[in-house]
Formats: sequence, structure tokens, C-alpha cells
Amino acid sequence: MITGKNYIGSQLVASGTKTFKTINPQLNIENDWTFTEATQAEIEKTVALADQAFKVYKNCSGKEKAAFLNAIADEILAIGDPLLEIYCTESGLPRGRAEGERGRTIFQLLSFADMLMEGSWVEATLDTAVPGRQPLPKEDLRKMLVPIGPIVVFGSSNFPFAFSTAGGDTASALAAGCPVIVKSHSMHIGTGEMVASAVIKAAQKTNMPEGVFSNLIGSGVVVGGALVSHPLVKGVGFTGSIKGGRALYDLAAQRPEPIPVFAEMGSINPVVILPKALENESQKWASTYAGSITMGTGQFCTNPGLLLGIKGESLTRFISELSAEIEKIAPSCMLHPSIKADFNQGKELLKSQNGVLTVAEYKGEIAPNYASQTLLTVDGKTFLENETLSHEVFGPFSIIVQCDDEVQLVSIINQLDGQLTATILSEGSEIKNYVSVIASLQNRVGRLIMNGVPTGVEVCPSMIHGGPYPASSDSRFTAVGIHAVKRWVRPFSFQNWPNDLLPTELQNENPLGIFRSVNNKQTSLPIV
Amino acid sequence: MITGKNYIGSQLVASGTKTFKTINPQLNIENDWTFTEATQAEIEKTVALADQAFKVYKNCSGKEKAAFLNAIADEILAIGDPLLEIYCTESGLPRGRAEGERGRTIFQLLSFADMLMEGSWVEATLDTAVPGRQPLPKEDLRKMLVPIGPIVVFGSSNFPFAFSTAGGDTASALAAGCPVIVKSHSMHIGTGEMVASAVIKAAQKTNMPEGVFSNLIGSGVVVGGALVSHPLVKGVGFTGSIKGGRALYDLAAQRPEPIPVFAEMGSINPVVILPKALENESQKWASTYAGSITMGTGQFCTNPGLLLGIKGESLTRFISELSAEIEKIAPSCMLHPSIKADFNQGKELLKSQNGVLTVAEYKGEIAPNYASQTLLTVDGKTFLENETLSHEVFGPFSIIVQCDDEVQLVSIINQLDGQLTATILSEGSEIKNYVSVIASLQNRVGRLIMNGVPTGVEVCPSMIHGGPYPASSDSRFTAVGIHAVKRWVRPFSFQNWPNDLLPTELQNENPLGIFRSVNNKQTSLPIV
Repeated sequence: MITGKNYIGSQLVASGTKTFKTINPQLNIENDWTFTEATQAEIEKTVALADQAFKVYKNCSGKEKAAFLNAIADEILAIGDPLLEIYCTESGLPRGRAEGERGRTIFQLLSFADMLMEGSWVEATLDTAVPGRQPLPKEDLRKMLVPIGPIVVFGSSNFPFAFSTAGGDTASALAAGCPVIVKSHSMHIGTGEMVASAVIKAAQKTNMPEGVFSNLIGSGVVVGGALVSHPLVKGVGFTGSIKGGRALYDLAAQRPEPIPVFAEMGSINPVVILPKALENESQKWASTYAGSITMGTGQFCTNPGLLLGIKGESLTRFISELSAEIEKIAPSCMLHPSIKADFNQGKELLKSQNGVLTVAEYKGEIAPNYASQTLLTVDGKTFLENETLSHEVFGPFSIIVQCDDEVQLVSIINQLDGQLTATILSEGSEIKNYVSVIASLQNRVGRLIMNGVPTGVEVCPSMIHGGPYPASSDSRFTAVGIHAVKRWVRPFSFQNWPNDLLPTELQNENPLGIFRSVNNKQTSLPIV
Repeated sequence: MITGKNYIGSQLVASGTKTFKTINPQLNIENDWTFTEATQAEIEKTVALADQAFKVYKNCSGKEKAAFLNAIADEILAIGDPLLEIYCTESGLPRGRAEGERGRTIFQLLSFADMLMEGSWVEATLDTAVPGRQPLPKEDLRKMLVPIGPIVVFGSSNFPFAFSTAGGDTASALAAGCPVIVKSHSMHIGTGEMVASAVIKAAQKTNMPEGVFSNLIGSGVVVGGALVSHPLVKGVGFTGSIKGGRALYDLAAQRPEPIPVFAEMGSINPVVILPKALENESQKWASTYAGSITMGTGQFCTNPGLLLGIKGESLTRFISELSAEIEKIAPSCMLHPSIKADFNQGKELLKSQNGVLTVAEYKGEIAPNYASQTLLTVDGKTFLENETLSHEVFGPFSIIVQCDDEVQLVSIINQLDGQLTATILSEGSEIKNYVSVIASLQNRVGRLIMNGVPTGVEVCPSMIHGGPYPASSDSRFTAVGIHAVKRWVRPFSFQNWPNDLLPTELQNENPLGIFRSVNNKQTSLPIV
């Protein structure tokens, strides 16, 4: 079922000579399939095809694009067990996670389909003519969002479904009206090919233009770099490391025509534990956070990698409780030997810093690609003075900083890089005494959570998955929720344009019945 | 009345030693005032003050910010004649234009104030909790737009009021909740200082934090470069040349933390003349376009610098008519000797290209900084093969390309850089036969105009003043209209946050009565 080839539109091609295999991290062996990296000529052909497809696809109605997205969801489900199996084989993640993530991916596709069926997302804005205005007549002006062009999506390592081939970036770009070229993540190329086959089938069944979707294979930086630098590519979506995301951002910024890159990158997701939160619920939070830190072997961008508390008995007790809970949990498999190696290297680096104490580390025997979850602690002054201690360690890892007081806590927050999330654990109205803590956190993050965990990113319109750099490369957008579509669209104005030649969204009659701003009032009524 | 000093917040300072003067282009003499360039220490102080101001200003209510913007408008008007006089002295533009542009600037400020009073612009998006959801409860999530931080605004040369000190970039950033540091344009520093004094007065009268607005003086690239590179600056607005805008874009992209730059840059604003449009209305269009090409001495970003027609008798006649109309118009003064020099150089370069014919050029005697308006013509093949012919010549200049046929016309359009606007002149339903022309134009521009002129950028919500690169550095935003605020805001989510600690925009009661998306439905009703 796996061919190991690239999809250039619906064509499976592999004229290249560079091949590689994926790994089964649970068994620590290579998988059987051989994948062939896309050649320069194949990249060129793919982009040209996407550019041609754009000319047709951008004019598809919301209903047509919704049918396509719904069909992708159907075709993914139709693959059934083989898809879940290859996901587990290539990622080392358990079956339950595969099912859950498939569900999330389907939900994302259906959410964008619903958004397209409803139609108001184009932000139609109309100002009607005032021919008699003095000193000059006012012309009729009508504006809506239109797609920017072919988008390159980089699959992530840690979400082989939901942030990869047919994940949020792809779904949002297709919803916008942009053809997508996926650079499949080299750790799960087989999973990627299977999902790509579903997208291609859906495109054919719903009469989408050839080239609306392609899936290219690359093991290093060559294929991705060529795609991002290509003049016909108009935007980039990426989920992964700061190093990778920044490299793509720089490539895109250096083009003769710079293009937008939305890169969702690193985050250590600070959790601020206010003193009273631990008075009655210390054990509850210890158990909850042991789960959050080790969930998915800690391989989430929202993993709580930094816990900030104020020195004292209750924090000391919480550290013991959390340590005990963490050590109780059975280790689990990481996505790839290289991710395991990075985890160990990062963890050992932090453990070796002056003033750092390892308070929990799974000590039993563990399989080759399994991670031994680890909790460190350090005092506030040491943390403030050593920048290395705020580096992300991707995996089941966290560091608890014991601050002297609120002033030091705020200093630490202000010194942090941009983050996807921050969480506050607070007992009742205690929070009201920490105004400066909240203010500082708001400045550093995209999402602020009260008495919960940062892991678990709900797919809904009010979610922000993004934040100040380097959480994302552009804090003005989100990677999750229907507003993720805004990354791939631009506003376009028609001035004095004949009603029958306008897109239906902007016609007087409002045939789609969408919400529009007409002369600065929200309405779904026609213009009469 | 003019001190020649920098405003660091409300303080007038000039500790530097580098000084310069502005020019009166009508009289071709230096003006009396001496301006002192900001020093590195003054820049540092200004940015630190803006960062401090942000902590307060970002929490101001819409009503408070609206009062500030309204007060700016009042204070600008209160200056009265002296402001109009210095505008004319430093720009060479006539009194009527000064009044008109002041009116536009006031209208922009009031539009943003109205937007703030109404309040729905924050795009409040709420998803309420579903505690019983399986397998996991759904948490309450609420999102709105929040300001990104201190913004640096570069005043333009050609709009000393409307795209400068208190122009659209400043008004939109202040509306967003971002402090503004203006790098005043060196051609009209005196005008800038007077407007800055109005902003400072308004800030004091409405109790805005010190540092919410500053105005720095620089004659070259040093002051601007230092501002854009400063870690506490979070965004940049610019209106001007491609070279200048790109330099700032590159500086911002190379920072350790890249920041968004919205640069509105060059455009030649193609006008496509369909054959039948000239059958009955040739003379009307000739006279209209002679006006549009020479209006404001052609110093508009939307100046029609490229007219595209299909060879034939009617086009030949139109060229004669337009030439005659253009030569009739009295030349006018350019903004500055250097702009006049650039105009002459650019014009002569294009005139000297093979196959180019000069069909109109004002031949009478003209004053030193006055421009002799010029119209060239060339055939389609020559235009296609010579990239120089599509360079912008900033001033009263246009080139008419005589295409062989529609195919060649489309090739020319497809080869153009991104543009702010394109215009089509069409007679009745003729347009329906030119589907591919429209499709090609849509891909290259931000605004499409039917039977009009590109000059005259209406300030209204449905206006796009922007477009694909290099018309702007990011086609996803506009510089004109209330949606210009979106350049300076980011979405922010609160998860499971106590109702009384939420911003009023997100509270259950909807105290401001704004339009919100609640569980994916538009409503202004409270949550009960």
C-alpha cells in the first residue's frame, strides 16, 4: 500500500536517487518501506501545477471547498486500521493516541467545512456610493478576503495527523482557497503518504483541479528550502523547532518577494503556582501535573516545562509530591531515536548546571527509545542568572523554580522569551493580589490558563495557538481554530464594480445570507 | 513656534550636534528653522519611555483612547493657519491641498475614535465550557485582540499630514493600544513638530501616560535604523519608496526577535483601456486621466503610471487627446529638489529606452522645482522585453503601452510586480469578454476599479490600500480604513478565567454591548 513516492498532484513519481527509510521507535528498527526524495525537477513541476491549480481553485465556492474538506475527512476514515497501524509504527505512539489524533484531524477539517458553508468568514465589508457627496462623490467600495496563492506546509514530528499532511495548516489553507504542497515529515513519510492518498482521492471525487494538493518527500533541508524559495510559492506553514522555523523564516524574508511564514516553534509554557493554591490542593496538582508533564512522552508544544513558585513549606511539599507522582509513571516511547538523543542531551545539560537539583528521574530499566521523565529544581536567582536554564527540553521534563518573592517571580517572567501559554494555579481570589504577575504574563504569551494545564489545545474559534516570538514567528495569527485561515488570505477591494460581476459574497442581494458590514453596520440583510 | 527639537514624550530635547534645515521648494530656498537630529541616548530614552507607557496605555478603555484621538483632532484644528502655512512652506503643495489633507487626517482620527466607541473591532470570540463533554470536559475559552507594543511610524514625504505624524499609521496604532514613536520625515520636520505638539497636548489633556507618543528627528537612515532594531520596538509602519521600505523590512526580519513591518511602497497602478471604452468617451477619459496623472504633481502612490490599451484607431486618437490635455495643464511644484531630481532622472531613463516615443511633455518655461509632466508610448513587445519600462517614475508621468492583442495584454499584466490598484475602462458589458484580463489583474493588485481613476483613496472600512509585494510588504493588511488597526494587534485567549477578572469585552454580561462570536454565533446578547 505504501509506494514510497511523491504525489505531484495525483501522480505518484519518484525519479530521484536519494532514498531513505523511517524508524519504528518501539522496536528500534528500520521500517521496510523505501522513500524517494523529490528531485529539483519534481519540485519545479509541483509548484507550477499548484500555481495552475490556484487559478481555478481560488474561484471555487465555499460549498465546493467544503465538499472537498468533508471528502478528505471521509477518505481518511475510510482507510481505517492500516492508517492507525502505520501511525503507531512510525511514531511509537499508542493506538489510543492515534485514534484521538485522527478524531482531532477530522474535527478540524469539518470545522473549516462548516465555516465555509456558513460563509461569513470572508469579512465582507461594503460601503455604498454617495453620488451627491461634496466636494467629491463617494464611490461604491466592497471588500472581502481572498486567498494569497500556493502554500507550503511542513509536517510536524509530534502530530503525524493533526499538524501534518491533512492537519490544521493544510485544512486552513485549503479552506482559504490556496493549493497546498506538503513537505512530509521525514519521521513518518509512510503515514504522510497514506493521508496524502486520501486527500488526492477526495480532490478527484469532488472535481478539484489537479495540483490543488501535492505531497513531497525530503529527508533534509534541500526540498523544503527549494519550496520556500520558489517564486510561485506565496506562504509557509510550519510546526517544529525554533532552529527549523527560523531558518524557513529567514529564507522567506530574503526572497526578492518576501512571503509570510507562520512558524509555531518552541515554548516552555510557564506555570505560576501561587502560594495558597498549594494549601489544600497540593496533591491534586501534583498528580495533575505529573500527567501533563509526561503525557505523550512530553512531546507537546504546550508541555509545562517551567513551574514557578515562591519558596516555602507548601512549595517544598509540592515538589516532593510531584516528584513521587512523576516517578510512579511508566516511561513511554519517544517519536524517534534522534528525538530521544536530543532529549537526553538537553536534560543532561540542564542537570549539569550549577545550583540545579534533580528531584525526580525514572530510575528503572527502560527500552532504547523510551524517555526517563525528569524533574529539576533551582532557586530563582540561579535561574535568572543562567539563560541555559530556560531552554526547552522537548520531552517529559520540567524544572521548578523556587523564587524568593513576587518581585523575583515577575523578573523571571519578564525575562522569558515569548510563549504559547502561561498557567496560573490560584486559590479563589488570591489571584487579585498578583496583578503584576498577570500583567507580565500577558505580555509574554498567547493564551493564559487559570487552574488547569497547558496541554490539551481545544479546537475552537476562541483558541490561540501561537504567541510572541519564538512561540510563533508572527503573534498576529493562530495555528488552531477556524481563524487559522487568516494566515492565508488578504483583503481585496472592488471599486464601482458591476453588481453581477462581483463575487456572490459582495453582491447587493447577499445571496449567501452571510453577515456583512454594510456602511459600518453588521447585517445579513440585502442592500436594496 | 518651531523649536527644532525632538519630543521624547512631552519633553522637548535636542542634545545632539547634527543639525539640518528643510527646504521651501516653491522658493527653492532653505527655511529658517534648524532641526537637531536625535542622539543614540535620546532614542534609547524614547523607546524605554514608550515601553513603560505601553504597560498603562494597553489597559486604557476604548472610550479613553477615543477621547485621546478626538482630542488630537481638536488640537490639530486648534493650531489653525500656522499649521497650513508651514505645510505649504515645507511641501510646496497648495493651500487647498493642505486643507483637504488636514480634513482627511481629522476624519481618520475620528473614524478610529468611532470604532473604539463602538467596540466590536476587538473580535471578541467566546466558547463557553461544556463540563460534561466526553471524553474530556470542554474548558471556557475567550479571545480578543490586544495591542502588540510600541510601534515606530515613518512619516511619508508626500502626505505631510495624512500619512505622517498623526496620520493613518499613528492613528491606527494608538487606536490599537500601542504607543507610537514617529520618525518625522526630513522634508517636513517643522510641520511634523507642530502636529506632534498637538498630539502631546491631547495626550496631556486626556491623561494619557507619558511616552504614549514621541517624535524624533533624523535626516538619514541612522535614527530610523536604530528604532527598528531596538528590542523594545514591536512593529513598524512605513510609507515611501521600495528601497526604503525594503531596508526597514530587512532590518526587522534580521532582529533576534523579528517584528512585523507594514511598508506601503511603490506602485505604477496599471489602467487597462478596453477598446469600446474609447468609442464614445475617449475625450472624457483623456481629460479625466490628464487630471489624475498630474494631480498633486503626480506625487501619489496611486498615480496611474501605466496605461494599457490594444492597438487601433481609437487608442491612437486617445493618445493624441490625452497628450493635448496633459500639455494644457500648468506644471506644479514638487515636494523637494531631490524628488524633482529623481523624477527627471527616472523620466529621462525611460525616454531614452529603445522604441519609446515621447508623446507629451510640457515645453514651456518652468520654475526650479516644478515638474514638466510627461506621457510616453511604446508597443507591447518592447514593453514586455524591457523591464526598465515598468519602473515607477514618481511624479506627473505615465506610459501608454499599445498591445497587439488581448494575449499580449495578459502577458504584460502577469509580468507586473504587485500593485496597489488596477483600473479598467470599459463600455457597458464589454468587460464580460475579458475574463482573463480581470483574473490576471486580481492576482496582482489590492484594489480593482471600474471606470474611474486610481487616485483618490477613500477612507472607509472597505478600502484596501496595500497589495502584493512590492505594493506592500504584507498583502494581508491595509494602511487605510479602520481595519488598518489589525496590523498592530494580536489575538489573546483566556482559558477558564474568572469572569470578573476578564476584560469587559469578554465578560458574560457584555457590558459594552459589542458584537461577539459566542459559540460560533454572532450576537450582542449577554451570556446567561
